[in-house]
Amino acid sequence: MARNKHPEETVNLILDVASRLFMEQGYEHTSIQNIIGCLGGLSKGAIYHHFKSKEDILEAVIDRMTADSNQLLKAIRDRPGLSGKEKLKAIFKESICRPVQDDIFTVAPDFHKNPKLLLSLLQDTVEEAAPHYILPIIEQGISDGSIQTDYPEQLAELILLAANIWMNPMIFDSSIEESYRKFMVFAQMMDGFGLDVMDSELLERLQELTAVYQKNKGTSAL
Amino acid sequence: MARNKHPEETVNLILDVASRLFMEQGYEHTSIQNIIGCLGGLSKGAIYHHFKSKEDILEAVIDRMTADSNQLLKAIRDRPGLSGKEKLKAIFKESICRPVQDDIFTVAPDFHKNPKLLLSLLQDTVEEAAPHYILPIIEQGISDGSIQTDYPEQLAELILLAANIWMNPMIFDSSIEESYRKFMVFAQMMDGFGLDVMDSELLERLQELTAVYQKNKGTSAL
Repeated sequence: MARNKHPEETVNLILDVASRLFMEQGYEHTSIQNIIGCLGGLSKGAIYHHFKSKEDILEAVIDRMTADSNQLLKAIRDRPGLSGKEKLKAIFKESICRPVQDDIFTVAPDFHKNPKLLLSLLQDTVEEAAPHYILPIIEQGISDGSIQTDYPEQLAELILLAANIWMNPMIFDSSIEESYRKFMVFAQMMDGFGLDVMDSELLERLQELTAVYQKNKGTSAL
Repeated sequence: MARNKHPEETVNLILDVASRLFMEQGYEHTSIQNIIGCLGGLSKGAIYHHFKSKEDILEAVIDRMTADSNQLLKAIRDRPGLSGKEKLKAIFKESICRPVQDDIFTVAPDFHKNPKLLLSLLQDTVEEAAPHYILPIIEQGISDGSIQTDYPEQLAELILLAANIWMNPMIFDSSIEESYRKFMVFAQMMDGFGLDVMDSELLERLQELTAVYQKNKGTSAL
């Protein structure tokens, strides 16, 4: 096979086309053939050289969508002048409010049909986001007295699993009413840990994203 | 194909052999070929007639192992003379303490390699166990004054997801020390909801099951 001198460009082209199609017609309703059809002559072999399956492409699309999200989390974690608890509040607010979330909820993959994706999200939450972004903030909060816990690693995990998995309307196919009720229970859990950081602005944004998902979902989730 | 007059017996035979092998040598180290080898002349075709894959067999093994567990949950839910909060405590204690749990933790499947299994567990937790067993108990607790919440469905889900998924040492490959720390954070969460039902007996049993899993796991989990 002739070597591709610019594999990154090919990968980016595939991801550009795939993410546009996923957003326009939904992940479940997009086939590999649809993607090839929009790639202007790139062969099926060229796609399979870089991606094993449509699910692989989706993972790469989501990775790319959230690449700058990690930059955001890092920036909040390292922002001067805020207490640990204030940073925790900022993390929730700025993560959920960034516009790329609308794109993700528009793609609206069916996790039921893509269990590997659910596993990736669980792993990313527990192995990446919790230890690298939430844990240092909780540890700062312990130092500055704004957060009290003897188990910062586990608190970081539980908070983020509840927020990223349980409250994720894409995973459990929550209605807007259910999203509201989950938010209230989550806020009560946070209060129980002394973390009164949830507010009505966050609630409204969660309901907005739930509506985006409900409008775009191809089929029912879990 | 000649019709099998006793398909249930065949299925039970396959599940008997498979669950013994899974327990003796672990799920990851057992092949379909191993199972066939112990089935005394039953053909590969006969297995594939009933099960699509080894993962399918595992799901059926676990379903059978936990079939009587649902009976237990039902019995506690319907037990007279206990308040809602007392029933919630009984659910945790009697579920985690029953001996079949040792069998499940001995099989020790690698959820990383079996994402469909993780999805089944999430679905079972949110769609079956939470609404059918935990919710009625919380609703009774609201009536008898032992539990306070405005969102019983969501509280049932959050509690059970944390207990069945996050605290499950098989899913997140927790060490005994990590299991202890998760337990403490979970107990604090429960306290925050006014549910002071976790005690040292439960903690010891969780650590015991973690040890069973750590001893038997084939490969690392998430």
